[in-house]
Amino acid sequence: MLFVSDNTAPVHPQVWDAMRAADAPDAPYDGDALSQRLDAAFSALFDRECAVVWTSTGTAANCLALATLVPPYGGVVCHDDAHIEQDEAGAPEFYTHGAKLMLAHGPHAKLTPENIAAVVDPIRDDVHRVQPCTIAITQATEQGCTYTPGELATLTAYARAKGFSVHMDGARFANAVAHLGCSAAEAGPAHGIDTLTFGMIKNGAMGAEALILFDPAKAAEAKRRHKRAGQLQSKGRFLAAQLLAMLDGDLWLANARAANAAATAIAGAAVHRLLYPCEANEVFVRCTAEERANLRDQGFVFYDWGPDAARFVAAWNTPAEAAQALAKAIASL
Amino acid sequence: MLFVSDNTAPVHPQVWDAMRAADAPDAPYDGDALSQRLDAAFSALFDRECAVVWTSTGTAANCLALATLVPPYGGVVCHDDAHIEQDEAGAPEFYTHGAKLMLAHGPHAKLTPENIAAVVDPIRDDVHRVQPCTIAITQATEQGCTYTPGELATLTAYARAKGFSVHMDGARFANAVAHLGCSAAEAGPAHGIDTLTFGMIKNGAMGAEALILFDPAKAAEAKRRHKRAGQLQSKGRFLAAQLLAMLDGDLWLANARAANAAATAIAGAAVHRLLYPCEANEVFVRCTAEERANLRDQGFVFYDWGPDAARFVAAWNTPAEAAQALAKAIASL
Amino acid sequence: MLFVSDNTAPVHPQVWDAMRAADAPDAPYDGDALSQRLDAAFSALFDRECAVVWTSTGTAANCLALATLVPPYGGVVCHDDAHIEQDEAGAPEFYTHGAKLMLAHGPHAKLTPENIAAVVDPIRDDVHRVQPCTIAITQATEQGCTYTPGELATLTAYARAKGFSVHMDGARFANAVAHLGCSAAEAGPAHGIDTLTFGMIKNGAMGAEALILFDPAKAAEAKRRHKRAGQLQSKGRFLAAQLLAMLDGDLWLANARAANAAATAIAGAAVHRLLYPCEANEVFVRCTAEERANLRDQGFVFYDWGPDAARFVAAWNTPAEAAQALAKAIASL
Amino acid sequence: MLFVSDNTAPVHPQVWDAMRAADAPDAPYDGDALSQRLDAAFSALFDRECAVVWTSTGTAANCLALATLVPPYGGVVCHDDAHIEQDEAGAPEFYTHGAKLMLAHGPHAKLTPENIAAVVDPIRDDVHRVQPCTIAITQATEQGCTYTPGELATLTAYARAKGFSVHMDGARFANAVAHLGCSAAEAGPAHGIDTLTFGMIKNGAMGAEALILFDPAKAAEAKRRHKRAGQLQSKGRFLAAQLLAMLDGDLWLANARAANAAATAIAGAAVHRLLYPCEANEVFVRCTAEERANLRDQGFVFYDWGPDAARFVAAWNTPAEAAQALAKAIASL
Repeated sequence: MLFVSDNTAPVHPQVWDAMRAADAPDAPYDGDALSQRLDAAFSALFDRECAVVWTSTGTAANCLALATLVPPYGGVVCHDDAHIEQDEAGAPEFYTHGAKLMLAHGPHAKLTPENIAAVVDPIRDDVHRVQPCTIAITQATEQGCTYTPGELATLTAYARAKGFSVHMDGARFANAVAHLGCSAAEAGPAHGIDTLTFGMIKNGAMGAEALILFDPAKAAEAKRRHKRAGQLQSKGRFLAAQLLAMLDGDLWLANARAANAAATAIAGAAVHRLLYPCEANEVFVRCTAEERANLRDQGFVFYDWGPDAARFVAAWNTPAEAAQALAKAIASL
Repeated sequence: MLFVSDNTAPVHPQVWDAMRAADAPDAPYDGDALSQRLDAAFSALFDRECAVVWTSTGTAANCLALATLVPPYGGVVCHDDAHIEQDEAGAPEFYTHGAKLMLAHGPHAKLTPENIAAVVDPIRDDVHRVQPCTIAITQATEQGCTYTPGELATLTAYARAKGFSVHMDGARFANAVAHLGCSAAEAGPAHGIDTLTFGMIKNGAMGAEALILFDPAKAAEAKRRHKRAGQLQSKGRFLAAQLLAMLDGDLWLANARAANAAATAIAGAAVHRLLYPCEANEVFVRCTAEERANLRDQGFVFYDWGPDAARFVAAWNTPAEAAQALAKAIASL
Repeated sequence: MLFVSDNTAPVHPQVWDAMRAADAPDAPYDGDALSQRLDAAFSALFDRECAVVWTSTGTAANCLALATLVPPYGGVVCHDDAHIEQDEAGAPEFYTHGAKLMLAHGPHAKLTPENIAAVVDPIRDDVHRVQPCTIAITQATEQGCTYTPGELATLTAYARAKGFSVHMDGARFANAVAHLGCSAAEAGPAHGIDTLTFGMIKNGAMGAEALILFDPAKAAEAKRRHKRAGQLQSKGRFLAAQLLAMLDGDLWLANARAANAAATAIAGAAVHRLLYPCEANEVFVRCTAEERANLRDQGFVFYDWGPDAARFVAAWNTPAEAAQALAKAIASL
Repeated sequence: MLFVSDNTAPVHPQVWDAMRAADAPDAPYDGDALSQRLDAAFSALFDRECAVVWTSTGTAANCLALATLVPPYGGVVCHDDAHIEQDEAGAPEFYTHGAKLMLAHGPHAKLTPENIAAVVDPIRDDVHRVQPCTIAITQATEQGCTYTPGELATLTAYARAKGFSVHMDGARFANAVAHLGCSAAEAGPAHGIDTLTFGMIKNGAMGAEALILFDPAKAAEAKRRHKRAGQLQSKGRFLAAQLLAMLDGDLWLANARAANAAATAIAGAAVHRLLYPCEANEVFVRCTAEERANLRDQGFVFYDWGPDAARFVAAWNTPAEAAQALAKAIASL
């Protein structure tokens, strides 16, 4: 029973169907009819005009977003657990031509005006210091927590007051929306963020993420950088098909709800062991090496989270029975 | 009847089958069993050890290759019609951090020791001039021509004598091999090239190209650059599956032969109109605007090639009847 | 008798005096009183508001200018003999993060609307092609010729119509002004150029060039890039002192006139041998290897200019007698 | 009485003399006789072969060094107070094309195997994480402390064991040597560091620092990057002259001793107020805003060091009387 990562989940049947349906002649790159529908489809979802660029990875989407927001000589404030800092191999520095990531600290891998201020307030406004330009947050965070609409409103108000742009890494944006029970817009776009990586791959797609630009005037630049980064696939219709399939009938939301439900079941059995609140599809559980061995002996596959904890990730296809079995096993430790 | 580009051809059924078969849990990124088979599979094909990195585009493969071959302060000699110069939006400069493309001129979009020397010999060996480091050739070329094994032997001997590394952009490498009737190795790797982009997308795959490194010691660097470029897809098994399906039973060669045969049929009807010899799957035909309109009225779809010519591209799935119909129409102009 | 380059000329006594006078405590970097006077001093000279950044080399000034004008994914049209293409070791690509130099061809190393159009008109306006953004010209050119005010008006009107910004490499701007007999403004700034490298080092300074930004709003960005490029010297007052000394009493113009006069004397003896018109302080003379050996035997030091010519450069301190001696020697060949 | 920074100190008379003496015709760039003497002069000083490149700033020297040591996808461990992190405006990221600075924490702005390990040990050796390649230390540190030869031996042994190269930012290397009372080699080079910025500007030069490469085989690459960074001044003889003047008769050491003596005098009066040991020419003194105002009323000019301290920097020319006056004033607070 796999709880390693939603990264490895299968492709949803509706996504397969859409891809097969896309296998007809059309214009190459993003000139096909499906790619041309993306702006309208996401604009409808978010109830505001946006431009959409498909990418093959979340790293590419995040870093293209940052490249449109921060100059090479600027800085990006992010949490020290942020994926862009920890897991993207310097891609932000590559795409931005050397912008500096500035690391804030705080619980639940969340940024707040306070922990951002602790980073940026000591920076003298002179030419010797890299100046912060952009805030990058993750929804849901790297610790499986979500920003509430209220928190987002506070954070973006702070950003606007300071003149910072805001990027949201939404590798698990769907899971955040499912947890919050609000609209997709309220989970981020409604609060005035500039760019969003709407992750689809962990949630049922194969190899397509959506980079959303809430300033459509930035689309031309983003598309040049996208091509220049080797991201513009010639058979782009297959990426667009994936994204549209995920939007169709709110498959993204149904899948995220399923994953979250499995995680919630697991977390419910581990209330006193939770490292962080379970607000999406990841459960971080304090347990000893012996306990982890015990679980693995029962057939559960998962990552260690440091020496004293384990991370369990549920995916759109995690069987309820598997989640319950894991919950029971944890409760019995 | 579509002769616009092999870019837009459908995905081959065997590729679809392989992708479906890959939709089972496995390690993420390139840790899956299929990705792990690639080095051996291509080493067998080329009869020499190599390391393989999948990418989502030929641009990414070409530019990752160049980044491993040329320092930021070096130069890459290529033909002025080369894809890396004309169609990659500055991706070579991005991936190499600013290396300079140095443009050679010559018929059939081919480099020769002579036209390379015309570029590099006048460059003083001092610190004020960017120094050439690498030669980049395209097999088949941007004018649909191929380098023979003899030409490659001459060219790579020249490169070795000058201390230049050699990259081969093989977006249509399969078509070149099919035309030459030699082994895959003889069409490039056997002559001591350093890196090869073995294009699969135009030839029946969906979104996977193979970057081949003939110095496997370079693989670690290439993989870091690949991740950093946002190319490392989490469900990489689907890319590996495409590449292996193309290799399986030499599907790549069968597909290329089919495309070349269609092109040859068209070229046969246009012998006196050919801009360049037809040595792969592209046919460049001199014809007036009126003649092009005439062909379009008959339902043929294709690109203009400047004001006085047309480009017709056959793909793996071009029906023989369509090619014959086009041949007939051209002959009747 | 040295005619190798104005690069190696001594430092003018007034520059030495100004540097010695600057050796008193003041704020570091560009916070000193002398650096603070530069904007006003050059604004007065050009009769328009500008911002000034000192640099230690012309390469740095040119490339900082380009970095403020062209995005990493853009292109710069320049002559194929341009210093930024031929002699700056890829610095433009470094400072701009990979912008592409696009090479125009034409006599006298000059750009014209026609030869620029020959480069840019064939570039499709799509995402696959690097798009030209900026025109870079040299005044006086690398062949010792000058753009007249009329030519500049035509060129900048063309640039404006196309949406291109314009940089002027004025390594020998002073010599151009001296030749044209017009105001400093009329030799460039009056026609709506965006940035100018006003070269002082060849003309009597030691190690300070002036980067002039005619959009002072760009100064903040330029200064960040300048610091980031390692150009912000802590004892900047010594660079400012050099620039102010060169402006003081129009020393820059007197020095340039002296150099031009020497060159004119030489050119007058070589009218039928001139490769290009002598419109500044450089003389390019057709002569055989034997003739060059003959001149060298007489003690003249100079560069070959290809196999069949020689380049003679006069500097601010070239003795009139030396120029006359050379003129006589050439006439006697 | 100025204690703001050694940055603003005057140019030493012997440096002036050497510069004037250099004002004779010679080859441009670094082809002049003085520049050609640098390798031998510094090799003699350090008793080991090295190659030397002059630069106009310490930022350029540091960042050129890093560019030769770390690939764009690598990391540099430095102290969080390091000049390269705090005061170089992203120049390390620019010169290295995006390498990541990894921040260690510890007293006296010093790196130790322990605080480096705290940074690097948690970094998984996989392709998702930037891997540390290089350690950058500052001698004397940003808190005015020095590494002893023993500490350096320990640190470089650790670096070698881990496969890390080592750069030393020696903006105040002379002050460190003067404090340690050891040879120039023992203060760094003897322990197997790879590159050293030997700072001269704060210590009596005008605008020349020495980048020392202890692997002379790296000189060719460093010189290409140096030119490409716009650092190669055409009248380079004036920079070489400064460096040679500083070496001549160990002027660098005499100047540093003078500055250190002044700082020691000040520190002696503030023993109970010192933030850090005074081991070079900087004194960091705890004092209230009122006390600082008091000192300023007496004519002392200096920087605040956060809300509760002041930094006093002595230079080569600080009069002993001024240092004593300041010492007395501090003692009387």
